Amino acid sequence: MSEPKGRFTPSTPDFEYRVRSSFSQQSVMNLIGAKIVKVVPGEVDIQIPFRKDLTQQHGFLHAGIITTIVDSACGYAALSLMPADASVLTVEFKVNFLSPAKGEWFIAKGKVVKPGRTITVCSGEVFTLGAEEPKLIATMTATMLMLQGRPGIMPG
Amino acid sequence: MSEPKGRFTPSTPDFEYRVRSSFSQQSVMNLIGAKIVKVVPGEVDIQIPFRKDLTQQHGFLHAGIITTIVDSACGYAALSLMPADASVLTVEFKVNFLSPAKGEWFIAKGKVVKPGRTITVCSGEVFTLGAEEPKLIATMTATMLMLQGRPGIMPG
Amino acid sequence: MSEPKGRFTPSTPDFEYRVRSSFSQQSVMNLIGAKIVKVVPGEVDIQIPFRKDLTQQHGFLHAGIITTIVDSACGYAALSLMPADASVLTVEFKVNFLSPAKGEWFIAKGKVVKPGRTITVCSGEVFTLGAEEPKLIATMTATMLMLQGRPGIMPG
Amino acid sequence: MSEPKGRFTPSTPDFEYRVRSSFSQQSVMNLIGAKIVKVVPGEVDIQIPFRKDLTQQHGFLHAGIITTIVDSACGYAALSLMPADASVLTVEFKVNFLSPAKGEWFIAKGKVVKPGRTITVCSGEVFTLGAEEPKLIATMTATMLMLQGRPGIMPG
Repeated sequence: MSEPKGRFTPSTPDFEYRVRSSFSQQSVMNLIGAKIVKVVPGEVDIQIPFRKDLTQQHGFLHAGIITTIVDSACGYAALSLMPADASVLTVEFKVNFLSPAKGEWFIAKGKVVKPGRTITVCSGEVFTLGAEEPKLIATMTATMLMLQGRPGIMPG
Repeated sequence: MSEPKGRFTPSTPDFEYRVRSSFSQQSVMNLIGAKIVKVVPGEVDIQIPFRKDLTQQHGFLHAGIITTIVDSACGYAALSLMPADASVLTVEFKVNFLSPAKGEWFIAKGKVVKPGRTITVCSGEVFTLGAEEPKLIATMTATMLMLQGRPGIMPG
Repeated sequence: MSEPKGRFTPSTPDFEYRVRSSFSQQSVMNLIGAKIVKVVPGEVDIQIPFRKDLTQQHGFLHAGIITTIVDSACGYAALSLMPADASVLTVEFKVNFLSPAKGEWFIAKGKVVKPGRTITVCSGEVFTLGAEEPKLIATMTATMLMLQGRPGIMPG
Repeated sequence: MSEPKGRFTPSTPDFEYRVRSSFSQQSVMNLIGAKIVKVVPGEVDIQIPFRKDLTQQHGFLHAGIITTIVDSACGYAALSLMPADASVLTVEFKVNFLSPAKGEWFIAKGKVVKPGRTITVCSGEVFTLGAEEPKLIATMTATMLMLQGRPGIMPG
């Protein structure tokens, strides 16, 4: 969970503001209790607590909820490196589930692997947090598309 | 959207009951308003209405919510062909997003491509429903793992 | 294996010529004995014989060789719908392997699922051909990128 | 490209022998000129030179050839941690292509992310080697299945 700080250069000084403003408009994040807890160039972390109403029938977080936070973490990691008039769309992602999603908190860490004018490739990891050491429970690779001059289309 | 009825044989006569009981215990389905609307051997459909609190910042359904319903549709399609003491786990999935998720209703259709004793491969499609003709907005391929003798571990 | 003919409209009348010319320059297709056996708008089939020198250690075709032909089939299916000055790049793909690749012949069928100005999504299937009925052994979903004005960059 | 040595414990002392013997039977590796250049517990590297007969029509290595070496690197990384009577099958993989595959040499590095009794998840990276610094051109995530008591079925 160590991050190489400063690996990427944001294209605008207000990248954090842009990311946080957009995040605050994702209604679903409010529904599931997700908070954005880190925004650095090319890296975004999103956290949620365990909640019974987010589970599948065995009391673990549903794979789709894990995916929801790690998709947004990856999308905003990509957006943090884009110009002011850009927006980002998820073209596709793939997620491997390594362990059952049990724990008190879950943190999704999205990072840019390769930024590009059209396509940005990101990787995401989801860890459980609680009494024990953080445990990796899921990994994502996501392909994000930058749109310019169409500010209305955003991640998710 | 045509389905080859009877392509697969369920391994127990009560497959529909097993699928619907398990679905009713997925709390997150209640949170997002999802209903299971079709259960035949190897095929399950799950539907949700558009709701503002499920959106990303532009008023489209969040990719993670689309993924939530199509993951469960695929998982239950797989479960419908499994023995009574089996449960199913999502090993991994990948989703391509073809069009923005706007519409009044969304239906996720999960189908078994290849059942197996250990691994079952499923494909999923998500369509918008509304005034117009159904439109394909996302496709999934999912790898499901059958567990036996561990009834507590289920999809999601 | 039935194909809806004429589902897509090619953007140039010489689409087949463009696809076949490009294919003939993929040296690796010659190395592995692959032939392009069908080119219609949005659909391309590529076939190879079983050969001992294409196998993994148990005498089945290596997953990478299966991937090689189905990637090209998908890439050329995408290219068949693109303008004359366009080229196509594989952004990413994912492949599920359903059965061991044993047989006398293998055919990879690439089809466009959703064409686009920037991104084209394709699906591919690989079948074994031989004494028995064709058997589906692998499925691909691929994301292709259209480049314009850079004719030098092509599939693969 | 730094590797945490000794992160995993091999289940047999002859893991390297088992991996190298199996690799030597993958005929396709000979065809494409691939060599296995590193075998440690949970990590395997496979290298190939650039060769004109492995290219797509623009002189870059075909995506399928890149996939061939990184699939085997991942499969053997998984096998290195398995018992003596086990064999490994590729269930599925996904590959993102980050840059054109041009260079003099290519090295595929496969690593185990999460070993398991049934499913082992691996990640792979492919770098170009040549005059310049190594450049990451592709990433893979692969799902491998362990089979026991069926020694004849192996990676690829």
